[in-house]
Amino acid sequence: MIQRIDRLPVELPRPKNPNPNDAAAVQELLGGKFGEMSTLMNYTFQSFNFRGRAKMKPFYDLIASIAAEEYSHIETVSYAINLLLTGTTVRGDDPATTPLEPAKDARISYHFLASGQASLPVDSQGNFWTGQNVFSSGNLKLDLLHNFFLECGARANKIRVYETVSDPTARAAVGYLLVRGGVHIVAYAKALEVLTGVDVGKLLPIPDISNKKFPEARKLEEEQGLHRVLFRWSPTDFEQIGAIWKGAHPEDGTELLVSEGMPEGAPAPDLDPEPQLTSPDGDIDPQMMADIAKRLFGTATPT
Amino acid sequence: MIQRIDRLPVELPRPKNPNPNDAAAVQELLGGKFGEMSTLMNYTFQSFNFRGRAKMKPFYDLIASIAAEEYSHIETVSYAINLLLTGTTVRGDDPATTPLEPAKDARISYHFLASGQASLPVDSQGNFWTGQNVFSSGNLKLDLLHNFFLECGARANKIRVYETVSDPTARAAVGYLLVRGGVHIVAYAKALEVLTGVDVGKLLPIPDISNKKFPEARKLEEEQGLHRVLFRWSPTDFEQIGAIWKGAHPEDGTELLVSEGMPEGAPAPDLDPEPQLTSPDGDIDPQMMADIAKRLFGTATPT
Amino acid sequence: MIQRIDRLPVELPRPKNPNPNDAAAVQELLGGKFGEMSTLMNYTFQSFNFRGRAKMKPFYDLIASIAAEEYSHIETVSYAINLLLTGTTVRGDDPATTPLEPAKDARISYHFLASGQASLPVDSQGNFWTGQNVFSSGNLKLDLLHNFFLECGARANKIRVYETVSDPTARAAVGYLLVRGGVHIVAYAKALEVLTGVDVGKLLPIPDISNKKFPEARKLEEEQGLHRVLFRWSPTDFEQIGAIWKGAHPEDGTELLVSEGMPEGAPAPDLDPEPQLTSPDGDIDPQMMADIAKRLFGTATPT
Amino acid sequence: MIQRIDRLPVELPRPKNPNPNDAAAVQELLGGKFGEMSTLMNYTFQSFNFRGRAKMKPFYDLIASIAAEEYSHIETVSYAINLLLTGTTVRGDDPATTPLEPAKDARISYHFLASGQASLPVDSQGNFWTGQNVFSSGNLKLDLLHNFFLECGARANKIRVYETVSDPTARAAVGYLLVRGGVHIVAYAKALEVLTGVDVGKLLPIPDISNKKFPEARKLEEEQGLHRVLFRWSPTDFEQIGAIWKGAHPEDGTELLVSEGMPEGAPAPDLDPEPQLTSPDGDIDPQMMADIAKRLFGTATPT
Amino acid sequence: MIQRIDRLPVELPRPKNPNPNDAAAVQELLGGKFGEMSTLMNYTFQSFNFRGRAKMKPFYDLIASIAAEEYSHIETVSYAINLLLTGTTVRGDDPATTPLEPAKDARISYHFLASGQASLPVDSQGNFWTGQNVFSSGNLKLDLLHNFFLECGARANKIRVYETVSDPTARAAVGYLLVRGGVHIVAYAKALEVLTGVDVGKLLPIPDISNKKFPEARKLEEEQGLHRVLFRWSPTDFEQIGAIWKGAHPEDGTELLVSEGMPEGAPAPDLDPEPQLTSPDGDIDPQMMADIAKRLFGTATPT
Amino acid sequence: MIQRIDRLPVELPRPKNPNPNDAAAVQELLGGKFGEMSTLMNYTFQSFNFRGRAKMKPFYDLIASIAAEEYSHIETVSYAINLLLTGTTVRGDDPATTPLEPAKDARISYHFLASGQASLPVDSQGNFWTGQNVFSSGNLKLDLLHNFFLECGARANKIRVYETVSDPTARAAVGYLLVRGGVHIVAYAKALEVLTGVDVGKLLPIPDISNKKFPEARKLEEEQGLHRVLFRWSPTDFEQIGAIWKGAHPEDGTELLVSEGMPEGAPAPDLDPEPQLTSPDGDIDPQMMADIAKRLFGTATPT
Repeated sequence: MIQRIDRLPVELPRPKNPNPNDAAAVQELLGGKFGEMSTLMNYTFQSFNFRGRAKMKPFYDLIASIAAEEYSHIETVSYAINLLLTGTTVRGDDPATTPLEPAKDARISYHFLASGQASLPVDSQGNFWTGQNVFSSGNLKLDLLHNFFLECGARANKIRVYETVSDPTARAAVGYLLVRGGVHIVAYAKALEVLTGVDVGKLLPIPDISNKKFPEARKLEEEQGLHRVLFRWSPTDFEQIGAIWKGAHPEDGTELLVSEGMPEGAPAPDLDPEPQLTSPDGDIDPQMMADIAKRLFGTATPT
Repeated sequence: MIQRIDRLPVELPRPKNPNPNDAAAVQELLGGKFGEMSTLMNYTFQSFNFRGRAKMKPFYDLIASIAAEEYSHIETVSYAINLLLTGTTVRGDDPATTPLEPAKDARISYHFLASGQASLPVDSQGNFWTGQNVFSSGNLKLDLLHNFFLECGARANKIRVYETVSDPTARAAVGYLLVRGGVHIVAYAKALEVLTGVDVGKLLPIPDISNKKFPEARKLEEEQGLHRVLFRWSPTDFEQIGAIWKGAHPEDGTELLVSEGMPEGAPAPDLDPEPQLTSPDGDIDPQMMADIAKRLFGTATPT
Repeated sequence: MIQRIDRLPVELPRPKNPNPNDAAAVQELLGGKFGEMSTLMNYTFQSFNFRGRAKMKPFYDLIASIAAEEYSHIETVSYAINLLLTGTTVRGDDPATTPLEPAKDARISYHFLASGQASLPVDSQGNFWTGQNVFSSGNLKLDLLHNFFLECGARANKIRVYETVSDPTARAAVGYLLVRGGVHIVAYAKALEVLTGVDVGKLLPIPDISNKKFPEARKLEEEQGLHRVLFRWSPTDFEQIGAIWKGAHPEDGTELLVSEGMPEGAPAPDLDPEPQLTSPDGDIDPQMMADIAKRLFGTATPT
Repeated sequence: MIQRIDRLPVELPRPKNPNPNDAAAVQELLGGKFGEMSTLMNYTFQSFNFRGRAKMKPFYDLIASIAAEEYSHIETVSYAINLLLTGTTVRGDDPATTPLEPAKDARISYHFLASGQASLPVDSQGNFWTGQNVFSSGNLKLDLLHNFFLECGARANKIRVYETVSDPTARAAVGYLLVRGGVHIVAYAKALEVLTGVDVGKLLPIPDISNKKFPEARKLEEEQGLHRVLFRWSPTDFEQIGAIWKGAHPEDGTELLVSEGMPEGAPAPDLDPEPQLTSPDGDIDPQMMADIAKRLFGTATPT
Repeated sequence: MIQRIDRLPVELPRPKNPNPNDAAAVQELLGGKFGEMSTLMNYTFQSFNFRGRAKMKPFYDLIASIAAEEYSHIETVSYAINLLLTGTTVRGDDPATTPLEPAKDARISYHFLASGQASLPVDSQGNFWTGQNVFSSGNLKLDLLHNFFLECGARANKIRVYETVSDPTARAAVGYLLVRGGVHIVAYAKALEVLTGVDVGKLLPIPDISNKKFPEARKLEEEQGLHRVLFRWSPTDFEQIGAIWKGAHPEDGTELLVSEGMPEGAPAPDLDPEPQLTSPDGDIDPQMMADIAKRLFGTATPT
Repeated sequence: MIQRIDRLPVELPRPKNPNPNDAAAVQELLGGKFGEMSTLMNYTFQSFNFRGRAKMKPFYDLIASIAAEEYSHIETVSYAINLLLTGTTVRGDDPATTPLEPAKDARISYHFLASGQASLPVDSQGNFWTGQNVFSSGNLKLDLLHNFFLECGARANKIRVYETVSDPTARAAVGYLLVRGGVHIVAYAKALEVLTGVDVGKLLPIPDISNKKFPEARKLEEEQGLHRVLFRWSPTDFEQIGAIWKGAHPEDGTELLVSEGMPEGAPAPDLDPEPQLTSPDGDIDPQMMADIAKRLFGTATPT
């Protein structure tokens, strides 16, 4: 079971220049083969399917807790996309003025036709995420190796999306994900090391470029030490993650820390209405609003 | 962001007769077009994408909170499948004895070849769940109508899977889901009613059969009144769900109640090792276990 | 535009032994790559997309008219499947008796979970028909060559499904389709011959076995000469099909004939209710029936 | 069985500014999840699969007749796309001049590489239509609810495509489809009302914008009352649609009318050849044309 | 079993104007339904699956040997794409300069995000090649008819890609493939003729345009007679291809020749590093290079 | 470019008990996500796409040469499937006797309907292989890590298929593939070690079971030392594979050897005709055979 807290793990600035093709590129990090839907669902299924967990409790705890963090990552990417799409068409409610005309040449038409200028579980090419991306073999060493590879592949995608999109909203999101994804890479390397004795962390960084080259990521690492921290995403469980997450960080040698509980985070950004999509808007008929309010609260004004 | 609590919302008994084709049928409720992956992801994306939410807060709260409950439903179905698959092959670690022979005729070969006799995001035919199943139009009335329809379609599938599989594990899971899915049907009916004034609940039940005809569901409804309760799946948010979830239940006229917080639930079942799949097992080399334990806990015995 | 006439082109007997795996095999002829959905949609799109049709009117007429016949073929296959599925589970409306238990081992679970024991646009493996099966290159010679090949591939499938399923319902349907598909093979061979002068018909039969080896097909050919007749599936158009459909049949040398108008056909079979699926049934609450009747006809008894 | 009449239900003007990305947007209405292929195939399969139809004849008639109308809708959308693609490249037959160069940046390359600058069963993103879009549960109330939702989702797409594309060809087509799709929404609302007594029509319009805001649609509704008319798409069957289609239109209160027979329609537009695609063209070798004509008509000049 | 020789069958010039959308168009010839992956895999599977081959040895030899040639075709198309993508972004290793910015509007984002500015098994729309494109019916006549059609469809695609892309790299590749694909068309026509006596070659050319209209293809045909030559792609087998490949070429009447062995070919082009993708580059840390060299060759300088 | 040699790398015995569901299980090793189609196509594309290869020649040579070996693996699996399917239906050419009746319950209907009782590029569930399975990031370290993981995943599947199917044909094929796949695992481990200095081989075996537990594999390793040998699959290229493939085998410490050239192999098994599929058979009309022979060889008897 989960509980939701209505905040994002990172604060996202408003875009300087909202742009549907920027949003399309960022979709790769949501619904791509190596996107956050994949990390979320891989670890979630591996945690449900973990056999003989009594003997291997720290590994179970690690996978299950990281799975929970991935939820905050699909959320972050989703909001970044939504912000990048807000205001990319002409607002208003007269269809005869062709308010969605700019959408005609957008790389992902679904953003305008199938969603309300908002995210969907698709990749940068508009292809839908699929359960084929989930790997859950039941062999712990193989699952950990998979997860280590998956996170490295995901890192390559983050790097490349960062290099494609310069808008500060995207960069804030991707910079944050580079740091947190980096934590997961190290976590699976540590888990493999505990299981086998092989210092897999010496392979890093994969690809061959440090997070420190990305200004937004560097800031989070150097100022907040966020690359050293593994959160425990449960008020009641996953107490043994510290049996794996300990010792030195393989890239800068700093000491790894477990944080009891989730990050404080920031409020989710408000998403403006887009009335041309007949999504909720500021021009709703006042009488209708009053009627709805009355049905909701027994009075025409919301409390 | 989410927090995980390592319990299931319902207690699942051990199967009387574990069987891969029973597990295959139950997969429809996990990775099918109308399965729990679909309800989870539809409401999750709708909550991320909700525009202009200030004016429509109770609707946002309702969708977002139900999204969180769906997580516990994929968990429940997943464990039911895992239990139904446990012990369906010959345990041991000598491949030359053809320990997986019974798998040859199973309807979903992936349970044995791609997973560790465990669940995958596939439907009853072994086809993978896909993001195409997510609907998030950005028009509130249309999204609510979709959700109402989706839950009715999901209910039809639950009914039919119940009629296919008699094992008590499956029936406990499906009975529980019928009740909770029924709550979601009513919740979306109420939301449509608040938005439009139309008493959509009078269309129920869809399909035309009452939950009371399913012994496990009837018990939960009659003894615990579980069909009247909407949980608030957040320690901090979603306070306005009660503006929609109120009044009389459309089928039996009982009063609807909001429960602050999630259900107490039950421990997740322990899943036995299946050594023939080289999944963790009881015969692990003692020296290796000692080495792992030492790396984990600094001593050869876990604390 | 089309008009529907509520009859099938061939009379289908009731199955001797309804069986879900027989129905699964027949699905290949509906939703398979070479199934009737494919022939229908290929010719339909080719007719919509036909450029410069004034100069090539007989070719347009031929493709467009055959497209219309294919509708009656998806109808025929669909009804054959529906008959083969009728009564394959235990009828009744008590879910606790596991009335769908026999469905657990059926090759296509969708027949029971996603449809009302009825046809779906899937192939024999339960994979969905897709628009990728449509070829419409805009080059007439290439489109005709495709259609000739498609019909030969479809014939191979019909032969093999016939060899798989002995039930008289399936055999009546497949025998009929072998004859009519055979007409389409010859029609596209004739069209290629008119366009190029090459006697493509001499390649026949493909595969290397005559329709006369299939008792149901032989009867239709020898007693009714149905392999010689091309129907004109329009009361107003496609007058020039006879400019292509003429001369001798390449296999038995009989003279080809155009029939003005569609076949007389037979009534569509009545499909029994399956109450365990909550599909319409004989036990509907009488008061509800009366209410519905009143809303329909202004009186409690239908006229 | 069907008969084809070689006319469109609406007259389509020539485009002012043919454009491949306009055509791409319109494809959503053909091969999208909520496109006309989906409405056609949903109702067609539901009509084939309708069990126990004797007791529910008006519902069967309604679904089966609307299914037939949908054929004219795929036809309309297809021709609109074909017109929007005509002349978008350089005509001629010398490949060395790169006549298809403008196609390189088109959103749907298939229009030029896989088809003859013509429609395909794909959506606006170039993804193929799939049978997964067909819902046929066998439960009448659930199928009607699905159809009501499907038509509302389709309406959202029509609105958004209208807002994206200003070319008069597209607008004539979409305006017409808004009106006729609106009729189907009301028809399924009425059917649900007859079945359950709930006035579902009061939910309309979904999305929250009237057809009257779309000039082409408004004209058809106000001048021709086309939103009040349900056609009977059969010369012989579907006599009972009037038992459902009756009473007042839920949006403007006008009286609903059944029209015996199909609309008169307009001739299908002539599609110009595109010789650079080696599709039929005006420069065919005269001797070859004479040979073909001779094989067709026994003379070198077509009659 | 195969042996690889590290040369291409044709020399590819460097692009004049590298361009991601040119590369996207050329992908159709690699991963499209009628691309070289399809010809390679169709003939490869047909050769593995060939039953009763003793009696039909020349047909087996023909299919198996052409299958081997297709490998050199996927190689050729792949290198053409790689060259067209080289240098299309800003080279360097500082991500903060947005070096991949030009990728944002490219039609196939995967070229930049999922590959190292290089080819993938996708078509021009970014959809992945699938095994559904393989046809292997086991009926020789039907398989040959399929192959004949497949090669004609592939030729239509080659023609259209040629007409879309004027860059000399693409034209050299496509011109070569037109000639060699033309050989395969004739080969399957001859095979059908041997099997049935029907002179299928008289249908050519399909589509209705000669290779001589394409300057690069004309040169290869007129100067090297490459359209007359069937290579024997084995040092040890396929000796009987000459029993089918003999007589006159159907288009220009020249004599067909078997060439013992494969073409001489040309070296594969060198692909420059793209350091912004962290693919191997010229700025690798010298110490790291020395370490690698030492591990490779026991010395810091490669031999 | 490649040359084909018409032999298999391993001798396959005839099945003791041909069985379609055994064949279905083995399909996982051909068309599964981790099947031989995937290893073949991953390394093939990586070799085409390798940038800056001059500096990294031994890595290029290794990947390119292993790619060539994978061809012999799809061949081996394909023949194993074909043998397991031979004779599983009733032979003969009278369709009315339902010769394919046993196919009705087979897990993969395509083996009988779409192919001539022969292999297809599908997995054990009948889902088609797709290009989505190809990973080619252009970052060498990441590609090698992927390949190492892919081979470990492939090994897990081989182990499980071995445990599912006891027929000697399958076991001979799978035993051989375990050994050769084991070589590839070590090769990619060595390549990672050379690139990074990390002894990745110490992670092995993954999954945690030795090849020595599989009798057929043990024999090849102990009697022939086949696990120590890397073949050079080219008469002219890939000379530098020995710079990586050297030193000790990580599991048994034996010395690694490069073999110049490919294995000797064994003749491909003869596949019997299946006349009921109208695949080539022994009962071909003698006159037709004579005609074909005459067209082939200028005489009625093949030489």
